[in-house]
Amino acid sequence: MLIVQKFGGTSVGDILRIKNVARRVKAELDKKNKVIVVVSAMSGVTNQLVGYCNEVSSLIDDAALSEYDSIIATGEQVTCGLLALELQSVGYKARSFLGWQIPLKTDVVHSKARIESIDGEFLLKSLEEFDVIVIAGFQGINEESNRVTTLGRGGSDTSAVAIAAAVKADLCDIYTDVNGVYTTDPRITDKARRLKKISYEEMLEMAYSGSKILQTRSVAMAMAHNVRVRVLSTFEEATDSSGTVLVNNNEEIMERRMVTGISYSKSDVRITLVKMPDHPGISSAIFGALAEKEVNVDMIIQNISSDGRFIDITFTTGREDLERAKLAINSIKDEVKYEQALTDDNIAKISVIGVGMISHSGVAYTMFKTLADKGINILLISTSEIKISVLIAKEYGELAVRILHDAYELDKK
Amino acid sequence: MLIVQKFGGTSVGDILRIKNVARRVKAELDKKNKVIVVVSAMSGVTNQLVGYCNEVSSLIDDAALSEYDSIIATGEQVTCGLLALELQSVGYKARSFLGWQIPLKTDVVHSKARIESIDGEFLLKSLEEFDVIVIAGFQGINEESNRVTTLGRGGSDTSAVAIAAAVKADLCDIYTDVNGVYTTDPRITDKARRLKKISYEEMLEMAYSGSKILQTRSVAMAMAHNVRVRVLSTFEEATDSSGTVLVNNNEEIMERRMVTGISYSKSDVRITLVKMPDHPGISSAIFGALAEKEVNVDMIIQNISSDGRFIDITFTTGREDLERAKLAINSIKDEVKYEQALTDDNIAKISVIGVGMISHSGVAYTMFKTLADKGINILLISTSEIKISVLIAKEYGELAVRILHDAYELDKK
Repeated sequence: MLIVQKFGGTSVGDILRIKNVARRVKAELDKKNKVIVVVSAMSGVTNQLVGYCNEVSSLIDDAALSEYDSIIATGEQVTCGLLALELQSVGYKARSFLGWQIPLKTDVVHSKARIESIDGEFLLKSLEEFDVIVIAGFQGINEESNRVTTLGRGGSDTSAVAIAAAVKADLCDIYTDVNGVYTTDPRITDKARRLKKISYEEMLEMAYSGSKILQTRSVAMAMAHNVRVRVLSTFEEATDSSGTVLVNNNEEIMERRMVTGISYSKSDVRITLVKMPDHPGISSAIFGALAEKEVNVDMIIQNISSDGRFIDITFTTGREDLERAKLAINSIKDEVKYEQALTDDNIAKISVIGVGMISHSGVAYTMFKTLADKGINILLISTSEIKISVLIAKEYGELAVRILHDAYELDKK
Repeated sequence: MLIVQKFGGTSVGDILRIKNVARRVKAELDKKNKVIVVVSAMSGVTNQLVGYCNEVSSLIDDAALSEYDSIIATGEQVTCGLLALELQSVGYKARSFLGWQIPLKTDVVHSKARIESIDGEFLLKSLEEFDVIVIAGFQGINEESNRVTTLGRGGSDTSAVAIAAAVKADLCDIYTDVNGVYTTDPRITDKARRLKKISYEEMLEMAYSGSKILQTRSVAMAMAHNVRVRVLSTFEEATDSSGTVLVNNNEEIMERRMVTGISYSKSDVRITLVKMPDHPGISSAIFGALAEKEVNVDMIIQNISSDGRFIDITFTTGREDLERAKLAINSIKDEVKYEQALTDDNIAKISVIGVGMISHSGVAYTMFKTLADKGINILLISTSEIKISVLIAKEYGELAVRILHDAYELDKK
């Protein structure tokens, strides 16, 4: 079997942990698997390097971001070299590769580059020469400029999945500090149950709606290239049934249930523009201004006054986008003539997710009734084919997760 | 004027110091000079990375040293990016380049690679596009293997001098934590005087015999390519008369004096092999074994017993080579049949250096008489055309430097 193993920052956080990672690699090599390892930087190192950059630059233009990328890419350069050294020390022919050495080619959008191509042939040939190869995640090269690029948030996961796609790996194991994807966050309810399988679509909705296990980008990449991704813990012995496998919806998930999981986010902000004279084009003015400032808008609701003359528009966004959202709103104050702009971050977003929703009715009803029975008011609702999200007051957030987990009987197999 | 500026580890030791370096660069740019900057890693960083490597590997083979190079090269990658960012922030079009981006090509001897060629045309073309370019010192690439290499001790100075040669720079300014080359170490006598000029040959002998200001390798490179090198302090404002300039002996040093400087080393070890039966080939056996273990031998003396049957051989080496020297000596015990092997590190080496010695007699006499007058016993003597070194007991080391400095009147211009 050809396996790509990816280890995150906490998994390679110090030398002892790097030795532990080498044992994980060895376990697969002992089974006669071929292995490509992708590593992140030691936890904390990237933040330190970003801190240095912020001390000398506001990082606003491309020339600065090119230097930024070259600087922060060193974190992975160190860990992939150290892991290769450790693997050599325990008896394997190991070699590290940086983005430019493969090459892993990207576009030229520094600090959030997109992968354009990976020389999979080169990696497969290297696997004939070496027992195991170790690749620096998160980084690539733009060949036209001959500059180092980095992939932005979740970049190492994306590297691993893209490499797995390029070499047609049988499995892409993402080692992290949790042992899989759960029906909900186990810190909120001990009834949370590890899912053996989850579909790409569900995982994508989980990531969008607050789960921090995988970034949406790597899940989307896995879905596009049909890469079998498994999420598992670096700190537990792995068996064939460890972790959670991301699979193609239609093929493998025999057990059909309405709801697969509940995700929970406390990092949203609600913004309401109050009492605007209604006229055509008002929404496009607002959301155009937000898009221009690169504000990611999540949920949207529009109310009209009883006399039909005024409207309110409410939307949510991530807290990291709040300042940009305020700038956008200020820029259109004269145009849309809102009386007030209210912001509220005392909110929680609860999402129930499951591909089974498509064929089961009553999921929404169960959700609304369960919340209503406990007197929890719903502020906003949004839905997709496989997800229903509601916004509620933050103080009820964890309670809502627990009662919904019970209502959908997620603790039962 | 085209200037290469090189800044060492203490000069770029933290963000404030990097900002100070940017001011030094700006001073040259303000004078309409063209500038290429070469930087070391932040002081301490390379040692930390080397420490990590030692924790996971004994670094004995080429595969390991290739990883080692890739890991430790990140130190310079960070500082050259940060300096480029800072130069951008103060208004210049700046860009960093790593060894592989230039390329600075080396042989494949990892951890102590030799420079084979530098694309000077590329650097000069880049200087048309950018106001200033910043290059990571100490590193290169071996193009056949496509691996990062490092140049070993003193590598960043060597990078700077080689780059200056490749672009035919008018001057290579080596910024360090001292403001030039002195007649002797100013910490030993406050009569020590900064030399405005010194010949390559003298600087080379200074470096060989204990001066830590420049590594021999970079001086030899400067001499071979006739690069005008200036040593000066990062922490003082630079004027045209700052520092010490390395020049071609015959051309520029008008002031001819017998002795230019006195250097002093406490890091040598003396090894004596006692009472070996004399027979042809005994020296070649000993020094062949030492060479095989890569022990650098400095001074050598051989004594023969009065009856001509036995000999003693004494030599000195650096303390860092002591363990390897012991291995070498043990390996030939049966062959050369020494009765005892004595080691002594309680010694100091004092060297008086000056191209003027060639044409002045009496330098050696002055040295021996001065030491004898204070009752300082000479254990070993070695000479070159422009240097006399003596080995004495360590306790007399600093006294010897002071009285010799006076004897040769080095405090007078």
